[in-house]
Formats: sequence, C-alpha cells, structure tokens
Amino acid sequence: MTISVIGASTCDKETYAVAEEVGRLIAERGATLVTGGLGGVMEAACRGAKETGGTTVGILPGTGKADANPFVDIPIITGMSHARNIIVVRSSDGVIAVGGEYGTLSEIAIALKLGKPVVGIKTWENITGIVKADTAVEAVRKVFELLMSS
Amino acid sequence: MTISVIGASTCDKETYAVAEEVGRLIAERGATLVTGGLGGVMEAACRGAKETGGTTVGILPGTGKADANPFVDIPIITGMSHARNIIVVRSSDGVIAVGGEYGTLSEIAIALKLGKPVVGIKTWENITGIVKADTAVEAVRKVFELLMSS
Amino acid sequence: MTISVIGASTCDKETYAVAEEVGRLIAERGATLVTGGLGGVMEAACRGAKETGGTTVGILPGTGKADANPFVDIPIITGMSHARNIIVVRSSDGVIAVGGEYGTLSEIAIALKLGKPVVGIKTWENITGIVKADTAVEAVRKVFELLMSS
Amino acid sequence: MTISVIGASTCDKETYAVAEEVGRLIAERGATLVTGGLGGVMEAACRGAKETGGTTVGILPGTGKADANPFVDIPIITGMSHARNIIVVRSSDGVIAVGGEYGTLSEIAIALKLGKPVVGIKTWENITGIVKADTAVEAVRKVFELLMSS
Repeated sequence: MTISVIGASTCDKETYAVAEEVGRLIAERGATLVTGGLGGVMEAACRGAKETGGTTVGILPGTGKADANPFVDIPIITGMSHARNIIVVRSSDGVIAVGGEYGTLSEIAIALKLGKPVVGIKTWENITGIVKADTAVEAVRKVFELLMSS
Repeated sequence: MTISVIGASTCDKETYAVAEEVGRLIAERGATLVTGGLGGVMEAACRGAKETGGTTVGILPGTGKADANPFVDIPIITGMSHARNIIVVRSSDGVIAVGGEYGTLSEIAIALKLGKPVVGIKTWENITGIVKADTAVEAVRKVFELLMSS
Repeated sequence: MTISVIGASTCDKETYAVAEEVGRLIAERGATLVTGGLGGVMEAACRGAKETGGTTVGILPGTGKADANPFVDIPIITGMSHARNIIVVRSSDGVIAVGGEYGTLSEIAIALKLGKPVVGIKTWENITGIVKADTAVEAVRKVFELLMSS
Repeated sequence: MTISVIGASTCDKETYAVAEEVGRLIAERGATLVTGGLGGVMEAACRGAKETGGTTVGILPGTGKADANPFVDIPIITGMSHARNIIVVRSSDGVIAVGGEYGTLSEIAIALKLGKPVVGIKTWENITGIVKADTAVEAVRKVFELLMSS
C-alpha cells in the first residue's frame, strides 16, 4: 500500500506537526509514503515516516536530488516541474492533503479525477469528494478505511 | 496572445453554445486558441474560433491525432495523459474555464499557481483567484482586461 | 502533414544553411513545421519555413516563451525539459535530423521506436532505420516519399 | 547510489541471465536499482537485485501498477509512456544498458546528454560515450569506477 501526503513546501509549525504525525502513522501501518520530496509538509511527512522506520519516496520537480528533503529514501528526479504532481498522485493508492495551496489543489483534483480516496486536513473547502478530517489520526484511519472498502 | 479554454470533454448544449461563443470572441480579438483538443467544451471553443478564421491548437493526452476534434488546426500529441493539462495552461497567457469537472479544476489550480489570469463561467466556486463571469462576452472581455493590466 | 526538423541548438553556418533550406522546402509542400523551438538547427528550419509563409510550431523545454526563436508562430511551453523531445516526435508524421548530438539521438530513437520515417543529413551513423540524405532537397523528397508509401 | 539497468521488455535467456547478474551485483554493492519496471531485461535486473535483498524501483510508462514485474518494490506510475525513460535516467547516477532496441537507445542518449556514465553490454555500437563491457561483472565494476572518479 502506498499513501501520498501532499501540501505546501513551506508551512507553519502546527501544520508541520500534523504532517509529521500523518507520516508516522502511515509508516506504522506498513505503507510506503510518497511525497513531492521538497520541504514543508512534504518534509514533515517524510520525517515522521522515518521515525518509525518507514520507506519514503520523493518525486521531485527539478533536475537533481539536492532538492530532496533529508528524509527521502528514494528520490525520483523528473525534471518536469509541476507535471510531477500527477506522478505523485498516480503512484499512490490514497492521498492525504495537509493544508496546501494551488499546487496541492491540482493534486487533489487529479486524485479525484482518477477516483482515488482523498482525505484533507485544513485543506481546500467546498471541493466535492474530499473527505474531511480534523486530526492526523482521523485522516490516516479514514484513508485506510476508504481503501479497504474500495 | 494565446488564450486557453478549458472544460469537460462532454457537455450539455447550453455549455457548448457558451464555449463556442468564447472561442469565436477569442479569435475575433486575434488571439490563438489553445485547448486540450478533445470534445465537449474543447470542441465547442475550437469550432467557434474557426468560424471567424482563428488558429486553434489542441494539446492532446493520447498518442495519436485521431482523438483531436475536427476544429483543431495544430494537434500536439503528448502521450502523457493528464500531464498535458499543465502544458495547456503553460502555453496560454490567460485561461477561461467553462463549466468543468476535476480535470478542469487541476488546470485552474496550475494556472493560479503560475499566476495566470483565470476567468470562469459556471465553473468551480469558492476558489480564490478565479474571476467570475456570467456570459461569454464578459469572460473574454475580463481575461483581456486582466492581461492588459498585468 | 506535419514534419519535424531536429538538431542541435547551436550549429555552424553550413549546417544552419542546410536546415534553413529544409524548413523552406517543408513549408513549400504545405506541411506544418515542428521543432524544439530553440536556436541553431531549430531556428534555421523555422526561419526557412517562414520565408515561404509556412506555419512553425516550437515545443519548448523551459517554462516561458522567451526561449523561442523569433520564427516560431506557435510556442508550446512544456516546462518538462528533455521530455519535450518526445512530444516533438509524436506531434510529427516524419522527422528530418540535421546534424545533431545526444538530444537529437534521443529524438531519432523515439521516432524509430514509434515507427515514424526518419531522414538524416550528416547525423548519427550506423543507426539502423535512419534514411540517409546528402542535401536538403533529397531529405525533404525522401521523407515525403516515405510518408506517401506508408 | 542509484544505478539503472535499461534494455528491452522482452529478451532471450542469455540476455536475461546477464541482466539478472547485473542486478544482483548492483544490490550487492548496496546501490538502489532503478528500471522501467516492465519485463525482459528490466524484470531480470529486478529479480537479481531481490536475490540479494536489494531495493528495486520501477518507473512505469502506463497508468497502473499491474504492469510492474513482480520484483519491483517501489512502482512509480507515470502515465507518460516513453517520457518515463527520461525519469529513469535522471533518477540514476549511472546507467548499464543490456542489449536493447530503440527505447534503450533513447535512454542512452539522454544519459549521455546529462553527462552520466553509461556502460553497455551487447548494446548499440558506434555511439561515442558508451563504455563497453563484455560481462555483468565488468559492467558493474566499470560503472562504479566511473562514478567514483567523477
């Protein structure tokens, strides 16, 4: 099972803490974590996953692995800028959005287009199809429930 | 100047008529029309542009030009599925969304991420950054105003 | 009919003159010219095509149209670096390589993989499948012959 | 360190055995193996790497993970057809080609364009820049020597 955590490349401490817990809980369930490999929410989730020995994949927009946050085990170098967002989503069975701006919205939209479960914490409102969660625990529980029932 | 019209590949008659008028008005202003090259809103806009002798580019997701609607002058074959959405947006100076579902939302999100003007007719609500329009005339007027002032 | 001319983004005067003539001859036959949109061989071919009123498409690797040579009518902005090579090839019915280095070789390889006619002037030797030509006239004649017979 | 093994998706037994040994030797050195994730040479290399507990990444051209060979640990789903070849090459520090046809040639060309070491066993001849090897042992030794000296 592979879960992606999506969100902005810079974020406040509270959002960072939530994303870190999401990453940890994903790894505890034995799933591989996929992110866009950069900072902010992506880094937090990778850091969390590594705390419990999980595997982290970072699908990077640029042309080298120097952009990867230090908690990425497997850097995938696309050189394709925002088009890598689609690879992040395609490569995961379910998606958890933590906060996030327009880039995150593009990933949410593609995930919903592809029929993948999307759980969101403090992310875009009023998008039909996003399952809302208030905490990391709730988000991870819900994404796995959705995957089990699909 | 290049304007893209984005929207679903199937649509009702009313939406088709609006998109056709948008395409016509874009061509009348001498701008090149870019779309995703398929049916529905994309076809309607291309049809409208050709009615007044405009140039139409279709950036296709598949691997052949047979998918292009008959009003595409220049088919671009990406073979990259939804990743072509990003090329549609990047290749245009401004974007007009007519209706649209998740694929359209992904294009709106990328356009806003890239700081491009986005005008929407009966499209996603509650997305900060979309400039609303009620008619084709208003949408085309607004996108050109935004481009002139930027 | 759409023909791409591929080759390096910098080249000597002789190569430039050959590519320019190739572009001119393609446009004279009424075909659309596709290139990677940058300088050197790409610019020369676009310049040639514009001399006889042809239409030129430039499929650019970067994120803006400022990189396009001045003879590109329709700039396509991919933001995908070398992955745009594949779009150049896919979007054309036949390919003419003029000189060229590794980037050109990657395009030749993809074109042959996709079963498209590839004619080469002073390009990679010893690649099965490339049809050799010594002049612009011969190259353009051969690519159209191959397209007619396929 | 990450090494990619590239080659055709179907191959004869002898080529399969060579690719399998290459994969095994890469894993023995502690490097991550990247391939295009399909059958033939890609499968053989992944199988070899798994025999000694290595980690295997498969960067797939299609839209689902069902295409991945059974020895891929981390499937990356691009949905981008041949454009994934570029991601395979970018994501690796060095490349070993085993046999191979036009798709492999496109990957060799991009790797050389990007200045990455390319070692080839029974692959394309007469391409300046490919370092030739006759056996799996020699190929793996050479790619690591090139990486150490660069």
